[in-house]
Amino acid sequence: MQRTSHVILTSHVDQIFKAAPSLQWGAKSAEQRGPVIATFTNPNHRNAIGSHSGGYTVYRALSIASGNYPQDHRPDLTNTMPTDDLGPHPSWSEPDRIISIDPWGAHVFQHFGDMLKEGHNIQPTIAVTKAHLRIAEIDDAIDAGRLKIDNKVILPNRDVVVTKAALEPVWYLPGLAKRFGVEEGELRKILFQETGGMFPELVTRPDLKVLLPPIGSTTAYVFGDITDLSAPEKPLTCRVHDECNGSDVFGSDICTCRPYLIHGIEEAIRAAQDGGSGLIVYYRKEGRALGEVTKFLVYNARKRQEGGDSAATYFHRTECVAGVQDARFQELMPDVLHWFGVRHIDRLVSMSDMKYNAIVNSGISVGERISIPDELVPEDARVEIEAKKAAGYFTAGNVLHGNDLDTVKGRNLSE
Amino acid sequence: MQRTSHVILTSHVDQIFKAAPSLQWGAKSAEQRGPVIATFTNPNHRNAIGSHSGGYTVYRALSIASGNYPQDHRPDLTNTMPTDDLGPHPSWSEPDRIISIDPWGAHVFQHFGDMLKEGHNIQPTIAVTKAHLRIAEIDDAIDAGRLKIDNKVILPNRDVVVTKAALEPVWYLPGLAKRFGVEEGELRKILFQETGGMFPELVTRPDLKVLLPPIGSTTAYVFGDITDLSAPEKPLTCRVHDECNGSDVFGSDICTCRPYLIHGIEEAIRAAQDGGSGLIVYYRKEGRALGEVTKFLVYNARKRQEGGDSAATYFHRTECVAGVQDARFQELMPDVLHWFGVRHIDRLVSMSDMKYNAIVNSGISVGERISIPDELVPEDARVEIEAKKAAGYFTAGNVLHGNDLDTVKGRNLSE
Repeated sequence: MQRTSHVILTSHVDQIFKAAPSLQWGAKSAEQRGPVIATFTNPNHRNAIGSHSGGYTVYRALSIASGNYPQDHRPDLTNTMPTDDLGPHPSWSEPDRIISIDPWGAHVFQHFGDMLKEGHNIQPTIAVTKAHLRIAEIDDAIDAGRLKIDNKVILPNRDVVVTKAALEPVWYLPGLAKRFGVEEGELRKILFQETGGMFPELVTRPDLKVLLPPIGSTTAYVFGDITDLSAPEKPLTCRVHDECNGSDVFGSDICTCRPYLIHGIEEAIRAAQDGGSGLIVYYRKEGRALGEVTKFLVYNARKRQEGGDSAATYFHRTECVAGVQDARFQELMPDVLHWFGVRHIDRLVSMSDMKYNAIVNSGISVGERISIPDELVPEDARVEIEAKKAAGYFTAGNVLHGNDLDTVKGRNLSE
Repeated sequence: MQRTSHVILTSHVDQIFKAAPSLQWGAKSAEQRGPVIATFTNPNHRNAIGSHSGGYTVYRALSIASGNYPQDHRPDLTNTMPTDDLGPHPSWSEPDRIISIDPWGAHVFQHFGDMLKEGHNIQPTIAVTKAHLRIAEIDDAIDAGRLKIDNKVILPNRDVVVTKAALEPVWYLPGLAKRFGVEEGELRKILFQETGGMFPELVTRPDLKVLLPPIGSTTAYVFGDITDLSAPEKPLTCRVHDECNGSDVFGSDICTCRPYLIHGIEEAIRAAQDGGSGLIVYYRKEGRALGEVTKFLVYNARKRQEGGDSAATYFHRTECVAGVQDARFQELMPDVLHWFGVRHIDRLVSMSDMKYNAIVNSGISVGERISIPDELVPEDARVEIEAKKAAGYFTAGNVLHGNDLDTVKGRNLSE
C-alpha cells in the first residue's frame, strides 16, 4: 500500500485535502451535517482525527502488521442496519446537546448511500440489534414472584427480550471544550500532551473538529419499545452504570456494582412490563476511569492502612494513590439519553449526585431516585456506600457523619 | 505547568534526555533491567512511549483540562504492594518469553525505592490484591453439590476467596516485532499510521523500545495459593477468556462466553479444593478485538442474510463486515501465564485451537482440554459453537461438516 511506503508525521494546513466532506456539527439533517470519515482507505477523505473502534484500532494495526488484515478492506454493510426505527429526535440538532457521539452514526447506509457507492469508506459508529438475555439473578426474581413471564419482555423460557445499541465515542471538540469550560486550543494541547502524544493533528489541524478517541464504546439495553423512550406518557426507568469488571462479571463483594446493576435491570424490566420502558446504559469507565491497576492499588492501601478499611477514609485513600477521587466525567454521559430522545426519567436507579446533576443540567427532568435496597449491599461494600452517602450521594435512608463513619469497617486482606 | 506552555510535537533524537534511566529488557534483575517510566511529572525521565492506564489516559487528560486533576500528582504508594510473594521466576528474564507486560511491574516499590525517593515518578503496571467473590451460578453449583464449602476456597457464607492481579500492557517493541514476524521499523510505522497517528515517537525515537498502548488491562484470578501456579506437582486448571460484555455481564444467549467462563471458574475452584490451583485470565478483547459496534453489525448481517443465521456462514459474515474473522492475537496471551511461572496446565478450559497453539508454542505444556458441557450452550449459540468446531476448535464430541452445518440455525431478529 502506498501509504506505508513513507511516514507522514502529521498533516499540516497545506495538506488539507479538498476531497474530505465537510462536517457541520448540529445541522438539521444528516446530509447537511455530512458523514464522519475516520477510515484510512483513502486518507484524502478523512475529516476526523483518530480512528474507529477505540483502542481496538491498535489490534487492527497489529493485524495489518502481521499480514492478517487486508489494509484496503471496505466493510460490506449489507443487512447491518439498525433493527428499530429511531429518530431523528430534535436533540440531534439542538446546539451542544450531543457532542460525544455521532447522532447519525447508526444510519450511514440510509443517509450516505450515494457517497458509499462513490467510494467513501464511511463506517457506522452506532449499531442497533436485538438480543435475548439469560441472567441467573433475574431467574431468581421470577422464582420469587417479583417478575412475571408476560411472553413479551420475559418469554416462557425466561429469556429477556431487549434491543441493544453499541455507541462509539465521536467527540466534537468545540462542544467538548465548551462543556468542560476550557478553551478549545487548550483542550487540544492537553489531550495531545498528557496522553504521551496521541494524534499530532489535535494541534496541527484546528480545522478538524472531530476526534474518535481510543476509549471504550458505550452499550445501551432497552426493555420495551425503543420509541417509548422519547414518549413522555410512557414511564421510564433508567440506570446509567459505569463499568466495574471485578463486580459486574466476577461478583467481587467490595462494591455494589453488580447488585445495583441487576436491580436496575429488574426495575427496567418491570417498567416495560407495566406499560412503560426501561433503559440501562453501560459506560466503559473501569475503576472510575482510573483503570483496574490503580483500583487494586487503592484496595490494598485501604485495607492495610492504620485502623483498617473505613468509610471515613474511603475517598482520601483513592486520592492519595490516584490523584483524584474520581476521574470520570458525568458531563458526557447524558448524550446517549438524548440520542434516544429521552426528556424525562420517572425512576432513576442511581444514588450518584454527579450523575443526577449531569442529567438534570443537560435538560432531562428526573422524578424519583431509587437507592440500592439495603439487603443487596454486600457486607464489605458498606465502607463504600456509607462514604458515598456521607459525600452527598442520594439515599432515602440515614447518613452517617464524623465518628460514626469510623465505625463502618471493611474486611482485612488476610480474611 | 511548564510543559503545557508550548507544544512539543515530538522529541527528536537530539532531544534524547540523558536523565532517563536505561532499560535492558530481559535482564536478570529488576535493578539491571531498570524501571519503566511513562509518567509526565518529569518528561526528562521518560524511557517509554505512551502512558499508563491504557485508554484511561484520555480521561486523565480531560480531568487535567477541566482543572480537577493536579498535573504534578505523584502517587502515594504506601501499602499498595502485592498481597502475595510472587517471583522472580526464570521466565522473567528468559529471552523473548515476556514482551507484552513488565514482569517487574508489581514490585516497583521494592526494587526502585531509592529512585522513587530521588524523585522518579515510577508507577506500578501490575497490582495484586485479595477479593471475595459472590457469583449466582456458583451458589447453584454449591446447592447442586458440585462444589463444597471447604472454609478455605469457599467460606461458609459462600464467598469464594481469590487473589487477583491487574496487568497493564507494556510492550517491548523488538520482542513484539519478532513474535509477529515483522521488522521492528515496519511495525512501528504501521502502529503509528493505522491508528491515525498515535505517538509520533514510534517513528522518531527508535531508541525508545517500550510502548504502553491505549488498550485495556488484563485481570488474573487465582484460586488457591498463588505460588502453586508454578509448582509442577500441583495440578493446574486454567481458562484464558476474552472479554464479551454482552454475555459476561448481560447474559446474551448468542454465544457461550459467560457459561464457559463460569464453567471455568467452577473447574478452577474444584482444582484448588482438590489440592491444586486454578487460574482464570480475563483479556480485554471485546468482540474478537473488533469492538462492540462491529460485533452488533455482524449480528444483524448474520440474522438477516438469506436463509437466516447459520453455522455454515458464521465466519464469512464476520469477515465481510470486519475484514477479518478475528482481530485478536493469542500470541501475546501466554505472557501472563509465564509471569506466574506456569510451565504446565493440567486442564485447559478452552476449545480454541488458536489459544492452545499459542500456549504450547510459548513453551507451556497442556494436559487435558475441557470443552464446554453441551447443556451449558444456549440454543442460539449453537451456530457459533458448531462453526468453531468445524473450523478446528477442540471438541470431544462430533464435528459437523458441509450440508450438516447448514442445518444449525439461529433465531431471527423478529423472534
